[in-house]
Amino acid sequence: MSLNLLASDWIADQNKSALSAHQTDLEHALEQLDRRGIDGRAVIDTLAAFSVAVPSWALGTGGTRFGRFPLGGEPRTIEEKLADCAVINRLTRANRTVSLHIPWDNPDDPQALVEYAKGLELGFDAMNSNTFQDQPGQVQSYKFGSLCHTDKAVRDQAIAHNLDVIALGEKLGSDQITIWLADGSSFPGQMDIRGAFERTESSLVEIYQKMPGDYTMFLEHKPYEPAFYMTVIQDWGSSYLMASRLGGRAQCLVDLGHHLPNSNIEQVVSRLLMADKLGGFHFNDSKYGDDDITTGSIKPYQLFLVFVELAAGQQVGGPFQDKLAFMIDASHNLKDPIEDLLQSTDAITLALAQSLVLNRSALSDAQQNNDVTQAQELLHAAYRLDVRPLVAEARLRNGGALSPIEAYRASNYRRQIIEERGTEGGAAGL
Amino acid sequence: MSLNLLASDWIADQNKSALSAHQTDLEHALEQLDRRGIDGRAVIDTLAAFSVAVPSWALGTGGTRFGRFPLGGEPRTIEEKLADCAVINRLTRANRTVSLHIPWDNPDDPQALVEYAKGLELGFDAMNSNTFQDQPGQVQSYKFGSLCHTDKAVRDQAIAHNLDVIALGEKLGSDQITIWLADGSSFPGQMDIRGAFERTESSLVEIYQKMPGDYTMFLEHKPYEPAFYMTVIQDWGSSYLMASRLGGRAQCLVDLGHHLPNSNIEQVVSRLLMADKLGGFHFNDSKYGDDDITTGSIKPYQLFLVFVELAAGQQVGGPFQDKLAFMIDASHNLKDPIEDLLQSTDAITLALAQSLVLNRSALSDAQQNNDVTQAQELLHAAYRLDVRPLVAEARLRNGGALSPIEAYRASNYRRQIIEERGTEGGAAGL
Amino acid sequence: MSLNLLASDWIADQNKSALSAHQTDLEHALEQLDRRGIDGRAVIDTLAAFSVAVPSWALGTGGTRFGRFPLGGEPRTIEEKLADCAVINRLTRANRTVSLHIPWDNPDDPQALVEYAKGLELGFDAMNSNTFQDQPGQVQSYKFGSLCHTDKAVRDQAIAHNLDVIALGEKLGSDQITIWLADGSSFPGQMDIRGAFERTESSLVEIYQKMPGDYTMFLEHKPYEPAFYMTVIQDWGSSYLMASRLGGRAQCLVDLGHHLPNSNIEQVVSRLLMADKLGGFHFNDSKYGDDDITTGSIKPYQLFLVFVELAAGQQVGGPFQDKLAFMIDASHNLKDPIEDLLQSTDAITLALAQSLVLNRSALSDAQQNNDVTQAQELLHAAYRLDVRPLVAEARLRNGGALSPIEAYRASNYRRQIIEERGTEGGAAGL
Amino acid sequence: MSLNLLASDWIADQNKSALSAHQTDLEHALEQLDRRGIDGRAVIDTLAAFSVAVPSWALGTGGTRFGRFPLGGEPRTIEEKLADCAVINRLTRANRTVSLHIPWDNPDDPQALVEYAKGLELGFDAMNSNTFQDQPGQVQSYKFGSLCHTDKAVRDQAIAHNLDVIALGEKLGSDQITIWLADGSSFPGQMDIRGAFERTESSLVEIYQKMPGDYTMFLEHKPYEPAFYMTVIQDWGSSYLMASRLGGRAQCLVDLGHHLPNSNIEQVVSRLLMADKLGGFHFNDSKYGDDDITTGSIKPYQLFLVFVELAAGQQVGGPFQDKLAFMIDASHNLKDPIEDLLQSTDAITLALAQSLVLNRSALSDAQQNNDVTQAQELLHAAYRLDVRPLVAEARLRNGGALSPIEAYRASNYRRQIIEERGTEGGAAGL
Repeated sequence: MSLNLLASDWIADQNKSALSAHQTDLEHALEQLDRRGIDGRAVIDTLAAFSVAVPSWALGTGGTRFGRFPLGGEPRTIEEKLADCAVINRLTRANRTVSLHIPWDNPDDPQALVEYAKGLELGFDAMNSNTFQDQPGQVQSYKFGSLCHTDKAVRDQAIAHNLDVIALGEKLGSDQITIWLADGSSFPGQMDIRGAFERTESSLVEIYQKMPGDYTMFLEHKPYEPAFYMTVIQDWGSSYLMASRLGGRAQCLVDLGHHLPNSNIEQVVSRLLMADKLGGFHFNDSKYGDDDITTGSIKPYQLFLVFVELAAGQQVGGPFQDKLAFMIDASHNLKDPIEDLLQSTDAITLALAQSLVLNRSALSDAQQNNDVTQAQELLHAAYRLDVRPLVAEARLRNGGALSPIEAYRASNYRRQIIEERGTEGGAAGL
Repeated sequence: MSLNLLASDWIADQNKSALSAHQTDLEHALEQLDRRGIDGRAVIDTLAAFSVAVPSWALGTGGTRFGRFPLGGEPRTIEEKLADCAVINRLTRANRTVSLHIPWDNPDDPQALVEYAKGLELGFDAMNSNTFQDQPGQVQSYKFGSLCHTDKAVRDQAIAHNLDVIALGEKLGSDQITIWLADGSSFPGQMDIRGAFERTESSLVEIYQKMPGDYTMFLEHKPYEPAFYMTVIQDWGSSYLMASRLGGRAQCLVDLGHHLPNSNIEQVVSRLLMADKLGGFHFNDSKYGDDDITTGSIKPYQLFLVFVELAAGQQVGGPFQDKLAFMIDASHNLKDPIEDLLQSTDAITLALAQSLVLNRSALSDAQQNNDVTQAQELLHAAYRLDVRPLVAEARLRNGGALSPIEAYRASNYRRQIIEERGTEGGAAGL
Repeated sequence: MSLNLLASDWIADQNKSALSAHQTDLEHALEQLDRRGIDGRAVIDTLAAFSVAVPSWALGTGGTRFGRFPLGGEPRTIEEKLADCAVINRLTRANRTVSLHIPWDNPDDPQALVEYAKGLELGFDAMNSNTFQDQPGQVQSYKFGSLCHTDKAVRDQAIAHNLDVIALGEKLGSDQITIWLADGSSFPGQMDIRGAFERTESSLVEIYQKMPGDYTMFLEHKPYEPAFYMTVIQDWGSSYLMASRLGGRAQCLVDLGHHLPNSNIEQVVSRLLMADKLGGFHFNDSKYGDDDITTGSIKPYQLFLVFVELAAGQQVGGPFQDKLAFMIDASHNLKDPIEDLLQSTDAITLALAQSLVLNRSALSDAQQNNDVTQAQELLHAAYRLDVRPLVAEARLRNGGALSPIEAYRASNYRRQIIEERGTEGGAAGL
Repeated sequence: MSLNLLASDWIADQNKSALSAHQTDLEHALEQLDRRGIDGRAVIDTLAAFSVAVPSWALGTGGTRFGRFPLGGEPRTIEEKLADCAVINRLTRANRTVSLHIPWDNPDDPQALVEYAKGLELGFDAMNSNTFQDQPGQVQSYKFGSLCHTDKAVRDQAIAHNLDVIALGEKLGSDQITIWLADGSSFPGQMDIRGAFERTESSLVEIYQKMPGDYTMFLEHKPYEPAFYMTVIQDWGSSYLMASRLGGRAQCLVDLGHHLPNSNIEQVVSRLLMADKLGGFHFNDSKYGDDDITTGSIKPYQLFLVFVELAAGQQVGGPFQDKLAFMIDASHNLKDPIEDLLQSTDAITLALAQSLVLNRSALSDAQQNNDVTQAQELLHAAYRLDVRPLVAEARLRNGGALSPIEAYRASNYRRQIIEERGTEGGAAGL
């Protein structure tokens, strides 16, 4: 089976040729940090403990409204999706969990799936429900909304689906559900703005009350979809309002791409953390809208600033914000999805590393004294430092690859799965 | 004195020539409404009772960062500002109150000012404090913020100023204070995002607690000012969060220009109304940012949609949302400020009229049945109806002018105040 | 056949009940125009001569990235698409041509299609080529671009396709081709920005040179697609540059939805008209991006301002800008596509009517004298006038329906085609 | 005099303590480049030859619409402005020219000013005219525009002013004039969109024709100012159109802040370079609009991408794009202007350095093969490299400071000029 290609020994072997240059770069990075009074080894500890989930639907080629341009070798089953996730994690050792999407990933035998995943050293992260598509044989249509629908029968169907996903999650060892709604309207007047929120609230209350006691519900806001005039949970304000009305186990989830132009996203993160309502974060990048392209490919400095907020109050050396659910939520139209996820994971871990080498006490002093120049100097000192050796060292220590993309290409994994799976489109669902 | 020019008799005289055409248009409008089963007379009743405040600072020529191009005749004192406001109200009879800005409008003798205003048939609306400028002789500087400042001495000065404004408001018969803060930062890192909010909160708590029991505090959010990276109360979410923490007499105020590109402002209005936190609305229009240009000059349909939300649950024929504070918040760089305010008042009243002729029960049915086409037909049926005769009739009934701008130009008021006041800039403060 | 339902007699019959109210409204509108010295009858002449093309792909249910929610009765063949277009035109008499999209609409027998269309009183407008999708059996893939591709073989295939479309257009009586390219890249660095433009240019030169002498090529710019970092022809500047390099028969086409946030689209129209490079206009509306929703549903005042520019220099009473290609380019996800197109046509014709009742000589005087208030008064006087009776009269005179949507619903056409065509999705291509 | 503080010896002395760490970092950087086959010494050569102009108006505290919060020590005369510029250049050795703004910087004796500047090792860059403010005693007002005005007398005054600035430039050794116009309108209808462009064109033609044969005219576009509805030269398309109509010595100038939300600015740079119309670039940064804050403080990756385009076709080791006029165009509301300009210069030079260490031939291969992953890897390999040692080495070699801001603070220059010049506002003009 293809995965044998990426066994630990093989990866260690791949690392050999670059090891000496890595050591030189690492020592230099540690020396630079030492000069600034920062414990680089503790930073590596935190990096080595960090993990960001991969969504099951990200392994296939994404699509635009004009159709898909398939790559070949796309996974046809949930098992094949997990195999691809395992490849990524073997290379990075920073993607230890997978986020499933139901019904796309509905397993016949949940327990068998848990065992299979365990064999791949993978766990299950937050479950995702889907009430934005009509499935074959579905009784009620979500054309005009799901949890917000004017017809109680449609709402009931959507509520039942979410409860099914939660029940499945329990069997898989997940204790979180992410509810993203495409509920909204395309035209002024189409929907009673207030009524739609209130109906959604009553639907969520029902799900919340039936959720097991250790389960957390994440609400994900989004200002618009193509062709929309409004969505029901359009921004962090509505998300916060809804989560507050539901209770302590309802939390807000922020997706980097779900904001109006020019939004200050790091400030949204700060507000939700302050209000004790930040539950998780979805990573991607974008230039115009919710483009879902590779994290860090467009605005890497913004990503750093987001991590500066996410890591506020963080003790370097300890585990990073272990209560937050982190996931890559991107689409892969042009790149090999595995390469794309490797690049995203790298960018995320680099931004985390930059936030960890920030001299926070000096920054706090500069803020207190309104020394604006110095505050910027400190941010840039962290951001411009080449932290790639720290991230590579964390991977190395965990048994991952020094250069994940090079190793992946060397493995010929894609060629092999094309042979196994064929060139037709897969089971992404989208 | 110039105001004699615009006495009731004179206005009635001005109206004569257009009266017959007005009657024809009015009858036709009423007939059209009648066909649709809408009581046009009740609509006129609501329009006749409506009033929107004029801010004292709007009577002078506004400025851009390049300087001002004064018009001449600008008011030099608060009394002259009120005189101009009285002119506007005599023409429209829909601008019965004035919103003062302190310290720009600090009166020597508040009681005398009340009497003076009464003589002009004007009252006082919400008071506005100012902690975004340094005044001559001021001990602490607001360069790095006011209620959010890292230095307690600066915060105390800003708190004291707000309490002074409230005390003055009490003397003037106002029971509302609008707090708009330019507090924020220009660069990432400059300000502790969370700390700035929490310091602002503690400052506001102090003001709130010392506020008389019948006083209401309005918080006005804004995403950015030129050269800003963030503001402390950047959106309705932060405004709502802050107002919730303060208590029931803290309310949110929405300004049409204080939003990111593409924001759905009518939805913000709906959310705050639902959460019982909408306190008031500031009218203006804009194409790019917070342009503060004439209301209705760029996006009149959006203005209508805002009124559809503002008037949700409204009984046509009764007074319009009498708990909400309405104000025109615009700047007048090119037009004669009086003409500009006449145009804004007209656009606001027209949008209100359009929202009142909307067939809400039919709309509600269309929404319930997801009849999207029909919902749009109903909105457009209200919006495209020519409601100008209804608004003109409401003015006429109140003793105002059929054509306020024509009457104003005929009065030669501007020429006369140029003679009295000169051509130099006035006391706008900005 | 279903079309019998909408014969002239039947429509005339439908109009009867509303005729008297229409006459009243029309007389009032004409009287109002008369008071302002505007010849309303001449306006109706221009309105009655106006037509905007319907695109063949607009008759099916559109889709979002989550899939389609089909309506039922969607056309399965080009003949069924034309039948639906004919229904629209019978109701409006302002949609006399259809714009085909190849290969979606490739006819077996072009001559037979021409005859069939003629029988439906329809002609063919600009042809549209498609190099943004891979068709089954296609040798080269457009995954990484078409006319801009780095591989000459791909470019050649795309050039050949465009020449095929032109050849087909000749047979159908069309003398225009609209080239919209999804060519672009998703990531910085992916594409040589300059090289991509230059390769596109060389491809277009080849098409241009082989185009028949009476043929016109329209280039349609667009700043982004979902998941894009850049497009090759991103704005009117690039479109103008390209069209200039090609020659006089290359023209720019403006689509209302293809602009960055806050763009001043009417100014783009003015610039291209000045440079003699405006070839046509695609109508739709949007709140956030290229939403392709019903024209006039979001920003009707902007639509009016666009028409003020489109009609600059226009003689009222004559045909409207007969050299420009007008098309509705919208997608219909929620509404019945026929109702949606009826609403769009109505909004477009109303905006044209508003632009025709504008007192241009008075506006010109106000502009010359920098009388900003008066310029706005004049625009609003035209915009706020209820011109619906003029548009209805133009329809009536041409044999169309007074209330197209009511008549359409009364006809039960949708119910009948659902019976004939079934409820499965159609041949929209998207 | 204050400048003595920053003599070469003193700077060399300041550098001593950090020299050893710098050498270590530099060697490591060169080793890393060497591994990638890039000649780091040649990169340093190009960096050492690079210079970006400082505008004379940037040395004072900027202002917002609420007023200025002066810093103290602001220059009161053009000589004091030049002194501050000299301080910056002594520290960076990368700001060798100053860009003057007339009338703010009108010298009594141009020849004496040239001598004075020479003594400070400074030259004069592009001159800037000002027709966006009314100056005391000015006959015609620019309230309603300057080169676009409807009144020929106003246009003539503006034309004469530009010719005066050109004549002065000749005396000062400048051969470039930058014309930025605030000409535009605040409301739809206020201005004839086309007429305004054509009047501007005829005014520019007159200036162009009277310009000396070796002079170049830069046109700077901008989409909006606060309170605007449109500007006459709103985007690169209009700028290009205008420059094309004028002739070869009219060029377009791009300012990083003069774009609509989400604009792809690097693409604009590429287009103008391709069309042989890019004349220069103004550096700053912004989050929302034309914020004019420190370059690189918000979007450093975008700055890198702009330099990737600016340096396209560039031979590393030679002088950088010596035909382009580079200037920092920022405003300094909160930071010490000198510190702000030091940070901007640093960010600009770093972005240049990153663009120079990009492996362009490998990138070109990846582009040719549509290897999207690899193209991004190459961009990031250049961007994430810590090039600060290269930039520091270039400064060091030229006699500048290793750490310009630390050296500046150590010099106590600000304290000294506060003593000399006082704490009142200066002569910035804005």
